[in-house]
Amino acid sequence: MKKRISLLGSTGSIGQQAIEVIREHRDIFEITTIAVMKSIDALEEQIREFKPKLAVVYDEASAKLLKERITTGTKILSGMEGLIEAATHPDVDIVLNSVVGSVGLQPTLSAIKCGKDIALANKETLVVAGSLIMKEVAGNNVKMIPVDSEHSAIFQCLQGEEINQPSKIILTASGGPFREWKKEDIAKANYRAALKHPNWSMGKKISIDSATLMNKGLEVIEAKWLFNVDVDKIEVVVHPQSIIHSMVEFQDNSIIAQLGLPDMKLPIQYALTYPKRLTGELPRLSFREIRELTFQQPDIEKFPCLQLAFDAITIGGTMPCVVNGANEELVQLYLEERIGFYDIPKYIEKAMHRHKAFQYINLEELLEVDAWVRDWIKSHFN
Amino acid sequence: MKKRISLLGSTGSIGQQAIEVIREHRDIFEITTIAVMKSIDALEEQIREFKPKLAVVYDEASAKLLKERITTGTKILSGMEGLIEAATHPDVDIVLNSVVGSVGLQPTLSAIKCGKDIALANKETLVVAGSLIMKEVAGNNVKMIPVDSEHSAIFQCLQGEEINQPSKIILTASGGPFREWKKEDIAKANYRAALKHPNWSMGKKISIDSATLMNKGLEVIEAKWLFNVDVDKIEVVVHPQSIIHSMVEFQDNSIIAQLGLPDMKLPIQYALTYPKRLTGELPRLSFREIRELTFQQPDIEKFPCLQLAFDAITIGGTMPCVVNGANEELVQLYLEERIGFYDIPKYIEKAMHRHKAFQYINLEELLEVDAWVRDWIKSHFN
Repeated sequence: MKKRISLLGSTGSIGQQAIEVIREHRDIFEITTIAVMKSIDALEEQIREFKPKLAVVYDEASAKLLKERITTGTKILSGMEGLIEAATHPDVDIVLNSVVGSVGLQPTLSAIKCGKDIALANKETLVVAGSLIMKEVAGNNVKMIPVDSEHSAIFQCLQGEEINQPSKIILTASGGPFREWKKEDIAKANYRAALKHPNWSMGKKISIDSATLMNKGLEVIEAKWLFNVDVDKIEVVVHPQSIIHSMVEFQDNSIIAQLGLPDMKLPIQYALTYPKRLTGELPRLSFREIRELTFQQPDIEKFPCLQLAFDAITIGGTMPCVVNGANEELVQLYLEERIGFYDIPKYIEKAMHRHKAFQYINLEELLEVDAWVRDWIKSHFN
Repeated sequence: MKKRISLLGSTGSIGQQAIEVIREHRDIFEITTIAVMKSIDALEEQIREFKPKLAVVYDEASAKLLKERITTGTKILSGMEGLIEAATHPDVDIVLNSVVGSVGLQPTLSAIKCGKDIALANKETLVVAGSLIMKEVAGNNVKMIPVDSEHSAIFQCLQGEEINQPSKIILTASGGPFREWKKEDIAKANYRAALKHPNWSMGKKISIDSATLMNKGLEVIEAKWLFNVDVDKIEVVVHPQSIIHSMVEFQDNSIIAQLGLPDMKLPIQYALTYPKRLTGELPRLSFREIRELTFQQPDIEKFPCLQLAFDAITIGGTMPCVVNGANEELVQLYLEERIGFYDIPKYIEKAMHRHKAFQYINLEELLEVDAWVRDWIKSHFN
């Protein structure tokens, strides 16, 4: 029987690569529900190719337009209720959540409660609501398989080990496009320079996050929840070649690492086939071509966002939600050229000072905090 | 209940490090039988400390001397029968075989037939008699856990994977002390230069094998048998820092690697505690100190022994036994300054040409071939 996939965010960078993986293995995969934020042209093609039972467009106006174009058996829905219906559809075995930002949170939570396995590319879900999500994962006995290349690496390194807690997680970071820039030049950099990632081809939001190292900070928080480790057991190492995707140190100080070419198709495919691996045509790393792998420490002076993320998860409770929401708004403002590069950490820090973190007990509280911080950030730039 | 260890070769480099590991964890390990080739002074101390039930000295004259000194309850035996009795003693759970050379073969085989798990540091066992040994391992349902750092790395990387055959094994090699020497200088190098290994502190035989890269060649053959892979799926990569101890590539082209400081205590300890890991005081690799890991291709022109080992296992049957026996004798002659560095590969190749390989079916045939090649080599230098 084929594995039935709910693909949320099918037209983004991860979504498109997931489509390629699924297309190459149609003998074992099928897409039964699919969702996008707004991009109905690309979605229309995907519907014609994969004939899902349900397609969702978050934006209502775009959903209406699509409905007029699709006359086949695919049902079209919109809004958050649509996303949730896609994620919890009875004909779904696994939800690949690759939407961008905290909008991915509610569908993930609903899917977990319905017993669906989750292939998680939407790191904001765990950043914002890690304790809530992981409690539901345990309570509903579902598998949560990371799609981020770093977390997929750690997940692979942990296979077969008789432990609940690794001794240390070593998250590698490319360092982003500004790794070798001077601070005064970074301060003046516009978003086009920030989007030029040296190794990975990714969406805009995550590319800016890579330039600020906030992406690595969010990954630290994600790793804490996924692998049940204290934040002081997570170390970030800059590794510009992005060949070692991350490492785990065990209690006997043996380190296991996962390596490969920087290609998201591998972690996407692994998440969909776990615990099996497919024999496939993915790009292959050759040590005949690799001459050296280098390592350096992250520069917190140049990239304060990384420290802010560490601070937020150390404070805990609602603070990571504040950092995430503020960051999403500030990245958008930076992409609109309305603020400078270092305004991102500056206003995240201001928001953190403004917020009194508390232990949340439900999603509603988090959504309120998320809404508050977004409004608060926006109010400074209107 | 403590794990009861038979430690064969307790005074060599691996043996002494095993003693340290066992001493640090006397709550979980005990030595019930112990054996050496000749070094009775060091053995006497070990007997007083660990009070084994049986101690064996391979050399009969030395065994007699020891008997006069030991008046406690430890029984003293000698010769091959003694080694076999130590390896098959009823009060033994696991045999750590760290003797040097093909003398380790018969005790290992006997131990497997008695259902003992094997921690194998004596790679000659598998080089000479791989198909025979692995058949017995499967037939007697025992665990064969490698102690060589490379094979321990591969073994660790394979944990938790749902496969019988990795897609590829990438064996790392330090390149030895002559990695950057010119061929004409290597030709004139004496054994003292060859013993100066850059990363590992080891016994004399293995140090010379590291200088010729025959050690890596023997490891290729060992890996073929241990992990059931075709020899064309084994790749050797020179990695001078010896931090990545080896790697496995899976069918989806994901690579898993094991890393650590070059310290044999980790693989020794892991082999004794597998599948558990101990929380321990072993040296810890820090990526705050590591700046780069480099890789290059092995130079077969400068190090023909590596190619000879590949040729031998490709031919198969008794040919690896010939290469191993010839190499052991030639290394000894080189250590005695009776031959030059490149006489080692030269006479190994001559022996290979002289021998017509055949598929052996029992140990006796191998012992005959081993005896023949040793005599044949010696006959050239007497």
